[in-house]
Amino acid sequence: MNYKLVFRLLGRLLLMEAVLMIPSLTASLIYGGGDALAFVFTIGLTALCGALMQGLLKPQREDLTARDGMAVAGLSWLILSFFGALPMVFSGAIPNMVDAYFETVSGFTTTGSTILTEIEHLPKGVLFWRSFTHWVGGMGVLVFTLAVLPRLSGRTAHLARAESPGPTFAKLLPKMSDTAKLLYGLYFALSLLETVCLLLAGMNMYDALIHTFGTAGTGGFSNYNASVGAFQNPLIEWIIGVFMMLFGVNFAVYFHMLRKEKEAIRQSEELWFYLILIGAATLIVTIAILPQYPAFFTALRTAFFQVTSIASTTGFATADFNLWPLLARALVILLMCMGACAGSTAGGFKLSRILLLFKSSYRDLEHTLQPRKVAVVRFEGKPVQESTLAQVGVYLAIWLFLAVVGTLLLCIRETDFVTAMTAALTCLSNVGPGLNGVGPAENFAHFSPAAKLLLSFYMLAGRLEIYPILLLFSPNVWRKN
Amino acid sequence: MNYKLVFRLLGRLLLMEAVLMIPSLTASLIYGGGDALAFVFTIGLTALCGALMQGLLKPQREDLTARDGMAVAGLSWLILSFFGALPMVFSGAIPNMVDAYFETVSGFTTTGSTILTEIEHLPKGVLFWRSFTHWVGGMGVLVFTLAVLPRLSGRTAHLARAESPGPTFAKLLPKMSDTAKLLYGLYFALSLLETVCLLLAGMNMYDALIHTFGTAGTGGFSNYNASVGAFQNPLIEWIIGVFMMLFGVNFAVYFHMLRKEKEAIRQSEELWFYLILIGAATLIVTIAILPQYPAFFTALRTAFFQVTSIASTTGFATADFNLWPLLARALVILLMCMGACAGSTAGGFKLSRILLLFKSSYRDLEHTLQPRKVAVVRFEGKPVQESTLAQVGVYLAIWLFLAVVGTLLLCIRETDFVTAMTAALTCLSNVGPGLNGVGPAENFAHFSPAAKLLLSFYMLAGRLEIYPILLLFSPNVWRKN
Repeated sequence: MNYKLVFRLLGRLLLMEAVLMIPSLTASLIYGGGDALAFVFTIGLTALCGALMQGLLKPQREDLTARDGMAVAGLSWLILSFFGALPMVFSGAIPNMVDAYFETVSGFTTTGSTILTEIEHLPKGVLFWRSFTHWVGGMGVLVFTLAVLPRLSGRTAHLARAESPGPTFAKLLPKMSDTAKLLYGLYFALSLLETVCLLLAGMNMYDALIHTFGTAGTGGFSNYNASVGAFQNPLIEWIIGVFMMLFGVNFAVYFHMLRKEKEAIRQSEELWFYLILIGAATLIVTIAILPQYPAFFTALRTAFFQVTSIASTTGFATADFNLWPLLARALVILLMCMGACAGSTAGGFKLSRILLLFKSSYRDLEHTLQPRKVAVVRFEGKPVQESTLAQVGVYLAIWLFLAVVGTLLLCIRETDFVTAMTAALTCLSNVGPGLNGVGPAENFAHFSPAAKLLLSFYMLAGRLEIYPILLLFSPNVWRKN
Repeated sequence: MNYKLVFRLLGRLLLMEAVLMIPSLTASLIYGGGDALAFVFTIGLTALCGALMQGLLKPQREDLTARDGMAVAGLSWLILSFFGALPMVFSGAIPNMVDAYFETVSGFTTTGSTILTEIEHLPKGVLFWRSFTHWVGGMGVLVFTLAVLPRLSGRTAHLARAESPGPTFAKLLPKMSDTAKLLYGLYFALSLLETVCLLLAGMNMYDALIHTFGTAGTGGFSNYNASVGAFQNPLIEWIIGVFMMLFGVNFAVYFHMLRKEKEAIRQSEELWFYLILIGAATLIVTIAILPQYPAFFTALRTAFFQVTSIASTTGFATADFNLWPLLARALVILLMCMGACAGSTAGGFKLSRILLLFKSSYRDLEHTLQPRKVAVVRFEGKPVQESTLAQVGVYLAIWLFLAVVGTLLLCIRETDFVTAMTAALTCLSNVGPGLNGVGPAENFAHFSPAAKLLLSFYMLAGRLEIYPILLLFSPNVWRKN
């Protein structure tokens, strides 16, 4: 690893983080609550550290290797979460550093799991920052930096690849930075649209922004204990439900829509799979929960909201789905693991990977019958390389390994299997709530500090699609080059 | 599919099954119980059907294609289980055909899940047959036929490959039939040794045979409601524990031992992984359950017995592990899925596959750091083909898909997630008991007929490593050739 280059880049990211805290400082000044000083102090400290790293480190070589890219991706999320946790600690909102770290990681990774038992009394600046991290984390601080700041070198594709979700990184435009700018344009536009819709539905500006951040990043932090259920407003539920679905779609689809490329949209197998999945799951859940709700449309609305919330890995709640019949709960666990589309802000295993696994399974079964026939797997109209298929299988194995080990480790202290399993899964998939002890009416406060750090690690692994975080344990990454 | 050839072969297998029922008829004649007539009738019917299929069908071509091999493997287990269930129905021991079918599939697939709530009052001939199916199923009726009967054609390797567990079929000797005979010699010898040990430990001949069948096939049917716990005999527990472990080892290892090929044993990574896994799991479980047991050695013995029982996918019980602390229970679920060594009588995902996944995951992680380096995965001293690695990934995907779908389907009627999940897993891995509602003190009687058929399908899929059973749903298999 090129230490000077990597840490110089991390310094630049810290400067960026300091800038990103300014809106939260503004919010705390507007709404009061006594947390302004905590922001001022954190911004100063973060900017100072960033400036020092940026100013003092002069790398001899400026080109970023694959190894450096992985290291930056892994380390940046660890470090940004550390500095991001400081306003919560300094303001006294979350005095314990481990808790604050968990909460910030949960924010940046757009998970939405919380250790807070009582949210509504917290200072509004801190709550704003907590939700704003979702919005920042949603599309990756790094790609943001790439799009906004001048390019560091030609090799920045390593960074984007390490951080963007899905099996492959779609280069929509010839230049990386143009692609990034385009994606952010879409992200801003959709966020703005949701905020406006929520305002029209009767939310105040602060709530509208908080819930837009949670939706856009597919995070799920709310400023109410009862989450979106607090509004008791069907229109708001539909709006957020639809936007959660939209933010789980591969952003390349919107790009094609803007260009009116109908063929590309028609061929987007992942999009159709996603829509069919949401439709089918909503239907099954509606039928399953019907006896518990007064009217069909209430059940349908609740089912749709909860299905899109979990499938898009957002995690907002309008119902305590922990009280639903087992089939509906089991579907929640399944959707939790599957995640939404690659190239979106969602977490989870990603639907495109599942489709690729289906296709290669089908091919393998047919191959058993006709061993001499050579068949190529095609996805969204293009042939898929064998190495990509192999990587998806490996990714499944690693993902499953982490899920199993996490569940086992949590079982040491927990007494309920479903709590332990869904806690590990919901963090690895960046969803937020799980079932039983981590259900939507519960939180993560009761875990030990060790378990909280473990789950923070899982949220980071899930957000970065495992490799950059797991590779931080490889001595090869830390070897000087 | 070459219908005449396939059904002629199935007829031959039915004749074989009729012969295999004779020891059970003998047992019922010796011990009484009124089930002799049921056996006489079933043997007659089975032999008649077999003889008719064998005599009337004259295939024009005698060579077995890959497709035919898969069809024979899949169909034979369905049909043999059907005829195997008849003695239970005719004798009135299990009057319901679906229940009897479940029980026989559980026997032949060496699963050991039971729908019986009260075992001890059943006629001794039926109980003997129930356990004998474990022994027959253990190494595969087909390979047995291949070894004992003259070879049908040169292409019989398709059959063995479809039926023998593990990612590859090790040809220990140049001729297939010689390999099969050798494996059976080992199987007989180990079974004989266990029976002698159990007799010496104080069991009567009947019990010793029943429990040898259950151990050798890694099945787990006992003739006592309390399973092996009924004997209250530490020596018996150690004997069965050790033999369960031995039957989970790849039989190729014993072949190498006989030939004194030390290098081959040293290189058997799967063997060492298996032994380390059992050692580590025993240790962890011992520590976890220590507070529940009067003495360290009681806890150790119970832990060792239960760990080898689950890891070898046998399913005998000396303790209701459903009452253990969560960590121990979670380990039980994990061991259940992993299974033991390929080329043994055990079920589950198989340790060699897990090792291959570990190795290709490691390679993929390293590849991310050094994209230009080409690395070959080596297993047990030999390079592994990329296609084999890809197949293992696909197998994981299909296995997981079945586990998830099975759990979901069971969740329709069940109310407890762990019951539904472990029922699907224990059947797919051919273990026997699960947790909660299907724990060692419970049984599968409470499931609906549809769920019992689903779980029968899962046991068959698990035993045949999915492909032959899943391919029965492919129109390509049923197309005439």
